[in-house]
Amino acid sequence: MTNSLSLKIKPHAAIIGAGRTNFGEQWYKDPEKLMIEAGINALESVDFGLGRKDIQACYFGSFLYQTTNKLGLVSGYMARELGINIPMNTTEAACASGGSAFYNACIAIKSGMYNVILVGGFEKMTDRFNKIIDDLMFAADPYEFDAGFTFPSLYASMMARYIHDYGDDQRCIEALAQIACKNHHHAVNNEYAQFRREITVQDVLKSPLVADPIRLLHCSPISDGAAAVILTKPELARKYTDAPIYVIASQQATDDVSLYTRESLTGIKVTRLALKKALDEVGISMKDIQIAEVHDCFTIEEAIFLEDSGFYEKGKAWKGIYESYESFKNSKHIPYVKDGKELIVNPGGGLKADGHPVGATGIRQIHECFIQLRGEAGKHQVDKEINLALCHNIGGTGGIATLHILTRDIYE
Amino acid sequence: MTNSLSLKIKPHAAIIGAGRTNFGEQWYKDPEKLMIEAGINALESVDFGLGRKDIQACYFGSFLYQTTNKLGLVSGYMARELGINIPMNTTEAACASGGSAFYNACIAIKSGMYNVILVGGFEKMTDRFNKIIDDLMFAADPYEFDAGFTFPSLYASMMARYIHDYGDDQRCIEALAQIACKNHHHAVNNEYAQFRREITVQDVLKSPLVADPIRLLHCSPISDGAAAVILTKPELARKYTDAPIYVIASQQATDDVSLYTRESLTGIKVTRLALKKALDEVGISMKDIQIAEVHDCFTIEEAIFLEDSGFYEKGKAWKGIYESYESFKNSKHIPYVKDGKELIVNPGGGLKADGHPVGATGIRQIHECFIQLRGEAGKHQVDKEINLALCHNIGGTGGIATLHILTRDIYE
Repeated sequence: MTNSLSLKIKPHAAIIGAGRTNFGEQWYKDPEKLMIEAGINALESVDFGLGRKDIQACYFGSFLYQTTNKLGLVSGYMARELGINIPMNTTEAACASGGSAFYNACIAIKSGMYNVILVGGFEKMTDRFNKIIDDLMFAADPYEFDAGFTFPSLYASMMARYIHDYGDDQRCIEALAQIACKNHHHAVNNEYAQFRREITVQDVLKSPLVADPIRLLHCSPISDGAAAVILTKPELARKYTDAPIYVIASQQATDDVSLYTRESLTGIKVTRLALKKALDEVGISMKDIQIAEVHDCFTIEEAIFLEDSGFYEKGKAWKGIYESYESFKNSKHIPYVKDGKELIVNPGGGLKADGHPVGATGIRQIHECFIQLRGEAGKHQVDKEINLALCHNIGGTGGIATLHILTRDIYE
Repeated sequence: MTNSLSLKIKPHAAIIGAGRTNFGEQWYKDPEKLMIEAGINALESVDFGLGRKDIQACYFGSFLYQTTNKLGLVSGYMARELGINIPMNTTEAACASGGSAFYNACIAIKSGMYNVILVGGFEKMTDRFNKIIDDLMFAADPYEFDAGFTFPSLYASMMARYIHDYGDDQRCIEALAQIACKNHHHAVNNEYAQFRREITVQDVLKSPLVADPIRLLHCSPISDGAAAVILTKPELARKYTDAPIYVIASQQATDDVSLYTRESLTGIKVTRLALKKALDEVGISMKDIQIAEVHDCFTIEEAIFLEDSGFYEKGKAWKGIYESYESFKNSKHIPYVKDGKELIVNPGGGLKADGHPVGATGIRQIHECFIQLRGEAGKHQVDKEINLALCHNIGGTGGIATLHILTRDIYE
């Protein structure tokens, strides 16, 4: 694999460090302090040392800092916290704010203007716990908000349609619950995760109904947290570490903010557009990917990704999920299996169990792939050798998606 | 000038089109519709033709769209309006959101990833007229908000200090009013401007006191509006137009969001940092600049810029302003003069008279320089030949600044 890849790929950037905070309820920490905590952790993770003054630009992603936290001009807060006066940029793309910040940071590395960039994502959602469901609806169409939709009910429309079209079988209902069980299972050994406990299919199916057919345990949680990574030019990476991780595909696609205008409720166009471009960029197929961070804001979205990506055929993901779960539920990680090929999705618990501080999620995904590819994920390290990881981050009901593919050591 | 410049400069990008809306109160237009109106105007301004499908990426800047307009995920709205699924990015940097979007778009052109980028800025401030002064305070420190400060009172602190330190003379008070008179005078012939009427020094000094010593006519207004420009790679520019405008310096600097931590109230560090880098990048001095779009959110900031930039010595801007105004107040444009060198600031009226829809301002400045450098500003065209223009956009009380230098035809 390594040699054949190295023929085609010119990396966008190299990741030389990554850090994060615990995800969960962090009542006593301001959002900018969470971001700096993750940033300092990322700096300190750089093997051969890197200080704040070495950073030449910053990219931050966050969604609700104005509405929920009453903050603006994030750059000014970060300049204060870091004590540096460099270019800093803040990107908002709903739940893909982190992925979008990372996408822009890769462009900035490619421009040649900077040697070292800090990229961060953060969200402090518990500041307005009782209103957060309304705040989140800024990522939907106002008509949807006015019609009484919330994000659970928007995704419930997708799930209901999926079950109606493809899932006339109790195993489909169970499979869409197994996704949550698998992600909780993966999070048990992830020291940063919000929910480090097992749940069963029965737990999911007996949990409170939020928006039929979505129940509480189909949903990712309300979370506080931040994550950060350090980027450099590929040719400079070994100045900072012996184990850089390379960004070999970086794509973004957009679509109408509203769900009601989509061609289909059981597929996400931005995922297909961005993923195809990302795979083409590297010259590989989905079958080559070994781990994938998938945007499982609700479990139905992980199932839909498995079909949008072509890993399973349209309408057949639930069968694949069911069979894989039944075969591997006692393993450390529960892979999806198709034609003997194994794909581990959300090895640290995903949005469902690791947590979903929305602006942080896209960077948390990069962080997870970084530590997995380096073999530094500790107790939740994937057991097999991996060299190709994918991050899929979407905003709203599919108004935007970012897709990144990471690899180890293509220059060996 | 042209030849000596061409030796040193490798442009970041070329501007091949620019468009905008009228600025002012636009009660019947949604913010995203304003943005699209400006974007379509920019596309249609490209001499040899360009359509929506030719755009490969978009960068948008806006400050208050969530809080004031209850919108998020701008990319999703724009994908709908434009009917394209390309990468789109939204940057928030308070009143420098437009400049920051432009800065990021220049980086994206430099990365080589895109041939044609649409960059836009927009703001719809009248949607929450009675609360907008609170919304704007998201660009300040919460301590300042809690202490009762508003943006007029923050800038009043600077103005009071400036007058205390340097202006023990009625002419200083008059000079800080003359800035408003000059910018209104410049806007009279600008068909897009919010205030197309002359005002006198006495009008300013008798206008209602907002925050001593700032009076109503020292302040830029609350505005709705949008502006857009089209960027391409320098080497492709002549495919689209015979008169491209080149971006030869692009800089951004950040500083603590709060005013109370600054070293001085009579200077803005981010302006000095970004401007020095911008001038060094081109290898010119401030004396070479012929027109400057300066961030005159309050008239004191235009005076402070003239000192931060070194055009006038520290504490001496008011004298220069006073003498220039008295000498040229009957001219079409009123330049600032120092040692025989003339600098025209805000030839279309600046934030004060053209209007200040905050996210749009940074792009409106680029638009103004684009039409001035091409000789297409119509009735408010600067009479002399110009080849170097500067855009200065700041956020908050100086938490961020972007600095861009534009030129004509360096490849002739």
